[in-house]
Amino acid sequence: MSIITLTTDFGLKDHFVGALKGKLLSGYPEAMLIDVSHHIEHFNIAQASYVVGAAYSSFPPGTVHLIGVDCELSTENRHLAMLWNGHYFICADNGILTLLTEKIVPEKIVEINIHDRLPEGCVDMDVFATVACHLAKGGTLNVIGRETTAMKEINGVQPVVAPDNNSIRGYVVYVDHFGNCVTNINQKLLKDIGKGRPFDITYGVKGEIKGIKRGYSDFTLNDRFTLKNYEGEKLALINGAGFLEIAVFRSNPHTVGSASTLLGLKFRDAVNVVFRAP
Amino acid sequence: MSIITLTTDFGLKDHFVGALKGKLLSGYPEAMLIDVSHHIEHFNIAQASYVVGAAYSSFPPGTVHLIGVDCELSTENRHLAMLWNGHYFICADNGILTLLTEKIVPEKIVEINIHDRLPEGCVDMDVFATVACHLAKGGTLNVIGRETTAMKEINGVQPVVAPDNNSIRGYVVYVDHFGNCVTNINQKLLKDIGKGRPFDITYGVKGEIKGIKRGYSDFTLNDRFTLKNYEGEKLALINGAGFLEIAVFRSNPHTVGSASTLLGLKFRDAVNVVFRAP
Amino acid sequence: MSIITLTTDFGLKDHFVGALKGKLLSGYPEAMLIDVSHHIEHFNIAQASYVVGAAYSSFPPGTVHLIGVDCELSTENRHLAMLWNGHYFICADNGILTLLTEKIVPEKIVEINIHDRLPEGCVDMDVFATVACHLAKGGTLNVIGRETTAMKEINGVQPVVAPDNNSIRGYVVYVDHFGNCVTNINQKLLKDIGKGRPFDITYGVKGEIKGIKRGYSDFTLNDRFTLKNYEGEKLALINGAGFLEIAVFRSNPHTVGSASTLLGLKFRDAVNVVFRAP
Repeated sequence: MSIITLTTDFGLKDHFVGALKGKLLSGYPEAMLIDVSHHIEHFNIAQASYVVGAAYSSFPPGTVHLIGVDCELSTENRHLAMLWNGHYFICADNGILTLLTEKIVPEKIVEINIHDRLPEGCVDMDVFATVACHLAKGGTLNVIGRETTAMKEINGVQPVVAPDNNSIRGYVVYVDHFGNCVTNINQKLLKDIGKGRPFDITYGVKGEIKGIKRGYSDFTLNDRFTLKNYEGEKLALINGAGFLEIAVFRSNPHTVGSASTLLGLKFRDAVNVVFRAP
Repeated sequence: MSIITLTTDFGLKDHFVGALKGKLLSGYPEAMLIDVSHHIEHFNIAQASYVVGAAYSSFPPGTVHLIGVDCELSTENRHLAMLWNGHYFICADNGILTLLTEKIVPEKIVEINIHDRLPEGCVDMDVFATVACHLAKGGTLNVIGRETTAMKEINGVQPVVAPDNNSIRGYVVYVDHFGNCVTNINQKLLKDIGKGRPFDITYGVKGEIKGIKRGYSDFTLNDRFTLKNYEGEKLALINGAGFLEIAVFRSNPHTVGSASTLLGLKFRDAVNVVFRAP
Repeated sequence: MSIITLTTDFGLKDHFVGALKGKLLSGYPEAMLIDVSHHIEHFNIAQASYVVGAAYSSFPPGTVHLIGVDCELSTENRHLAMLWNGHYFICADNGILTLLTEKIVPEKIVEINIHDRLPEGCVDMDVFATVACHLAKGGTLNVIGRETTAMKEINGVQPVVAPDNNSIRGYVVYVDHFGNCVTNINQKLLKDIGKGRPFDITYGVKGEIKGIKRGYSDFTLNDRFTLKNYEGEKLALINGAGFLEIAVFRSNPHTVGSASTLLGLKFRDAVNVVFRAP
């Protein structure tokens, strides 16, 4: 119970992340601090939610995940701590947790209320660090907050299933380092609605990808066609985080281009799954 | 006494930081290594000084702060180690320590003189790593250097107080990840000169900010005006490091703009504090 | 035997690196995880090889170096683990190890064959993490793979020595954070072929650098010419990793320019060493 992960939009240029780690180690010298990402786009809670959701389950149960995105305390922005799927999450009540917890009910959520117990001049990261150390040491949620059930809701972010169950309309929630486009359509939804039917993917005016691959390099190789021949091919797959992703094989956003630049897919652009007869 | 922090202009692309950590762990396997920043602008000692100064006090006393900026040994650039405010600092004598220690006298400074005790082919980072491990293990400064009091001075970097004590002229010393502009006017100076008087901030030809906020989101919220309505508002506040900062609420230098781009404030641009009658 | 270093082209924006660390800590909670670089250019095995080669020897023997570049398993891309110079390396058989091990024969190489022992849905990083934990804990190569001697070869990447031994033709293999250009001509080759003769460096149409310096700031300083006077000077030196490097003193690729931008040297551009009579 001694890992604390950090996901922020602080960047790595300034002292912010180092200072936060100093506070955490001051409170809990044995803590194992692991960076998930500090390059969340400024104040982008959808990105933060995707990245934390994709990372957390690789850590052991009991890990504490601190999310420093848009977290200044205000009358609108309460500070929350949550136990969910055996992991702890600390962040502001700005919608991140709603996006993260879709359909699986949290074990417990508390509104952090230790602010007036901290020394004068404390900033939000002092609060988060104190709570993170407390939880990582095995402390309970009740000690640092008052139980609550309400979280700020974010609307219109779910994929929509057609009335005839023959298609799903989702959208791009994340463009990764390779320029690959991750949608909000997950494996479970594809299975529940598809019931084993094969499917194609459509996007934009007439973009189409036939079927799905098991991996980025899942091509038919032989003496004539090696992997090199498939560089630049577009494809769809279920990524490591369990979401439908549109990719380009061996893409590079800085040189040859990527799924995002080559196929014209950006954050929030629509992507459709169209089921075929089995 | 086992934390070693790292602040460099090495970037994260090359092997430099990894190799430095390998050297540190070879010398002291139990060291806790914490990155403060490796994105200091190339050879920018003013930035390095601000970032280290803003981070160090979040760490426990006895922490060793290694600063790898413009640190190649030469007849001009000696290697120094310093005990100051209960923390150790290792860097070259290029002005960083003078900027850092303004007005508070260091407990002890030594000129590192172990260079000829190290194996042939050693580079500057071997020296810094050896000293850092020695200090982190609880060793004394005397063993690794000869006491000195002189440090290279940097001139013209202090804010200037008007003869009538009614204004202070400082400048932008750092533009952070959010594009917010940190000045060299600190809380203590504002208090000493202001003696409780309210003040406004002026910059550029006719830039002006009335008064100061307690936080980035310190706006008057109600049913009609939520935080969202204040996005893009300029404001001034005392930042977490204790310096006067000019910010834009929920800025993003890559999309909507930031204090730096929207207000036209760059490194070294002047910022004035003008006190009002109380 | 508990350090695991990471070198990948994953970038730091996504959850990939954090998730990999979570898997490693799940398998071996006491592991000391050290980032070498996550900014290898997408799928660039030459860069990966240079960076790992430059970093590994700063770590203690027994360190495990995980290389996550172009590592999806396929019929072309086997997964390998290697013991070399007392260090362990884990990567795909895509040429990286051939570039790394030039002229020094590996102690042992195995083709990893634990894939079918892992749970369903495992990805390549689950395999690498399992192997890394096994080796870091002191396990042997035989348990996780079948011994092999063949590695994918990369051709045409060695410097060429002129028949008369009076010159060497190499090329730029890496442009670092400072824009300095590292060649594939190493210290040993210069010594073996040069036999103590002085040499000059030529590049491009008529680029020339006379002789070699002992360091970036190895200039003749006095009251009239201080280090500041030499900013922007081009020079050649043997870098910390043992390779001939063409540099510009106190360069900054983002502002004043660097060896790469000012001298017009890019990845793969030729650089010649021309020996003079002794």
